[in-house]
Amino acid sequence: MQIFRNPDPSQWPALQQRPLADSNAAILARAGEIFDDVASRGDEALRQYAAQLDGAPDLASLRVSAEELAAGAAQVPAELQAAIRQAIQNITTFHAAQRPAAVEAEVETMPGVRCWRRSVAVPRVGLYVPGGSAPLFSTLLMLGIPAKLAGCREIVLCTPPGRGTGTIAPAILFAAQELGLTTIIKAGGAQAVAALTVGTASVPAVDKIFGPGNRYVTAAKQLAAQRGVAIDMPAGPSEVLVIADASANPAFVAADLLSQAEHGPDSQVVLLTDSEAVLQGVVAELERQLPLLPRADIARQALAESRAILLTDVKTMLAFSNQYAPEHLILAVAAPEGLAADIYNAGSVFMGHLTPEAVGDYASGTNHTLPTGGYARAYSGVSLDSFYKKITFQQLAPNGLLALAPVVEPMAEAEGLRAHAHAVALRREHLIESKS
Amino acid sequence: MQIFRNPDPSQWPALQQRPLADSNAAILARAGEIFDDVASRGDEALRQYAAQLDGAPDLASLRVSAEELAAGAAQVPAELQAAIRQAIQNITTFHAAQRPAAVEAEVETMPGVRCWRRSVAVPRVGLYVPGGSAPLFSTLLMLGIPAKLAGCREIVLCTPPGRGTGTIAPAILFAAQELGLTTIIKAGGAQAVAALTVGTASVPAVDKIFGPGNRYVTAAKQLAAQRGVAIDMPAGPSEVLVIADASANPAFVAADLLSQAEHGPDSQVVLLTDSEAVLQGVVAELERQLPLLPRADIARQALAESRAILLTDVKTMLAFSNQYAPEHLILAVAAPEGLAADIYNAGSVFMGHLTPEAVGDYASGTNHTLPTGGYARAYSGVSLDSFYKKITFQQLAPNGLLALAPVVEPMAEAEGLRAHAHAVALRREHLIESKS
Repeated sequence: MQIFRNPDPSQWPALQQRPLADSNAAILARAGEIFDDVASRGDEALRQYAAQLDGAPDLASLRVSAEELAAGAAQVPAELQAAIRQAIQNITTFHAAQRPAAVEAEVETMPGVRCWRRSVAVPRVGLYVPGGSAPLFSTLLMLGIPAKLAGCREIVLCTPPGRGTGTIAPAILFAAQELGLTTIIKAGGAQAVAALTVGTASVPAVDKIFGPGNRYVTAAKQLAAQRGVAIDMPAGPSEVLVIADASANPAFVAADLLSQAEHGPDSQVVLLTDSEAVLQGVVAELERQLPLLPRADIARQALAESRAILLTDVKTMLAFSNQYAPEHLILAVAAPEGLAADIYNAGSVFMGHLTPEAVGDYASGTNHTLPTGGYARAYSGVSLDSFYKKITFQQLAPNGLLALAPVVEPMAEAEGLRAHAHAVALRREHLIESKS
Repeated sequence: MQIFRNPDPSQWPALQQRPLADSNAAILARAGEIFDDVASRGDEALRQYAAQLDGAPDLASLRVSAEELAAGAAQVPAELQAAIRQAIQNITTFHAAQRPAAVEAEVETMPGVRCWRRSVAVPRVGLYVPGGSAPLFSTLLMLGIPAKLAGCREIVLCTPPGRGTGTIAPAILFAAQELGLTTIIKAGGAQAVAALTVGTASVPAVDKIFGPGNRYVTAAKQLAAQRGVAIDMPAGPSEVLVIADASANPAFVAADLLSQAEHGPDSQVVLLTDSEAVLQGVVAELERQLPLLPRADIARQALAESRAILLTDVKTMLAFSNQYAPEHLILAVAAPEGLAADIYNAGSVFMGHLTPEAVGDYASGTNHTLPTGGYARAYSGVSLDSFYKKITFQQLAPNGLLALAPVVEPMAEAEGLRAHAHAVALRREHLIESKS
């Protein structure tokens, strides 16, 4: 790690810089070609990309059959089955508590003017679960559980077929089975996002697409958004910022930093501490733990770009963290309770020495789909809210219309919108005439 | 209007088609140039664009001074002042009822595993209010009121200086004064959005940008989003869909269609009715009312591209409307209450014969910043929610860590993320050792 001691606040912005995303013009262009191809050739294009890009030729069907689902799920070892079931229970418990009122209380803004909101599930959602080096079944839990809880009418899962096998990883199938998901498509990459956007014979079009992915997936989600499909949030490399005081256990802190660093060479890892001893202890622990990891090479690359910063006190560390707006914030301090109210930019916060980020990644109950790249300044992570929208309603009684007319008519006229004023005036005149 | 009678549902998608947005490559490129220019030259670039594009050379300051604010606001006629004050009261009443709990109830997902969420205002927001042919002070109310209610730390208003005068319309200044907004910038177009994104000497950088605008503003908001600043929602031409049964008053319905059509030649207007008499009555009323409007030319162009569709019954009309997902939905029916629960795709709904869209545009209390272009399938309109984000928290007690360890460790191992498992295992071993 790069070590800085008491940098002046004027230097903070440089220390908070994320690596710039590569110019993605080439990736966007390629994703655009794939998009157009799926739009014109549908399933045929999906089959071709499965063969070309995923190494899965000769897919009998793009959809996972009920038999395939059951047979695959049954391959998951009992210990992992039990763990996934407990994770589902915890995530369900936390997200179910977020359920909005179907209809909020009416507000009478003036006598005879009633306004209210209804929460309605997004009808059709697409969940993208990457394949790649390991099956990210935890992502399926984080997206599928709130989608089911919200009662989305259609939930479509896309995940790439395995190289050579053309099958989906058992753990993903088991998670899907436990959640009751039945529309499971063997498609990955930009082509999956395109299919969810435009629809094909095998893949229903959806209203909102969730899930992480590589740069082609991210580019395809941008294209989906331009075509009227919502996306969960902009994606970027994962991040953790740890605030450690003198009470921190250097081995725990190092393990937390490494569990972020192992995600990828572009993972962002930031350590803030007000203790020189902790700083040195963590650096030593990193060296000790790093060689034990199967993904040590990846973690080493990420750490080389990462920063450990000594600051004077907790207040200064919080100020730095709020400016950085980390996806994950670990408060490795003796009394985290006193700090929570002062955190205003972060995705998810892990309180105290016994709450590693890893528990939130899998099973504490919170969602692990969180804003990266500073988006935590304005975005929430995925939650049950993400699967709902709110529709406003208003209804005027005659007295309400008469009360609003002298408000709306001059405002509309002042904005040069005569027809708006007229739509109110017509009704006002009608009410006055019918009274007399 | 183009008239269709009982089209087969297979034809609906064609009838629901919005006009395709122009390819915006040229606009994006120009917005990108402006963006880069503002990023490198700051206020100097803003002054130059004010002169070039807004016709406002020699601005003494890019910020509206306290004296200018007071003097401008005082020019607003008393009737309009009173109307704006009442609108502010109604909008405030409705939005204040949406205030989230600062801290949601903790959920104990397993014994010793506590999770909760905090709602935190987006710290710094930018409100863009277009100038152009008329000062859209109502947009300022719709954005400024929830921003103030949420308690955003910094609220920056950008609006273009007037051609020749270099001043801001009195009604906008009055609205700003009533809301207590003090950071008011004389900048419009892509350059204003760029300034809010990158910050200049006069314009603070913000975390989220709200507000409508022309195609350059929309393109600039896309660029802002790519640079890590959130935006309220994708923008498009305004729309209304009216569902009218035999009880509808053709004059009212025609007035409502016209109040949408006068917005611009690309406004979307759709009439659904199950009554031939209403259909013919509305067409006749349109012809009668149209010539009375100052913006008749604009409305006529919009109507030429618009559709009146006769369908068999209310259920069919609702099905069509849900597929279309209108920004505004007017239920010009005798008993709208029975339909509300069946609406699942719409931005804002106007119930019954006495609730024209115009009341929601100004003063019923609901927000008029709503999803267009079919985005109502997945997006809510702007509300108090839009000015908050939710941060999740979790805290484990020793029993919680011990309960989660056998869940998280096998899941992390199954995803190939050893360091994640290790961060939990270290703590587990530490707890077990310290017990013994």
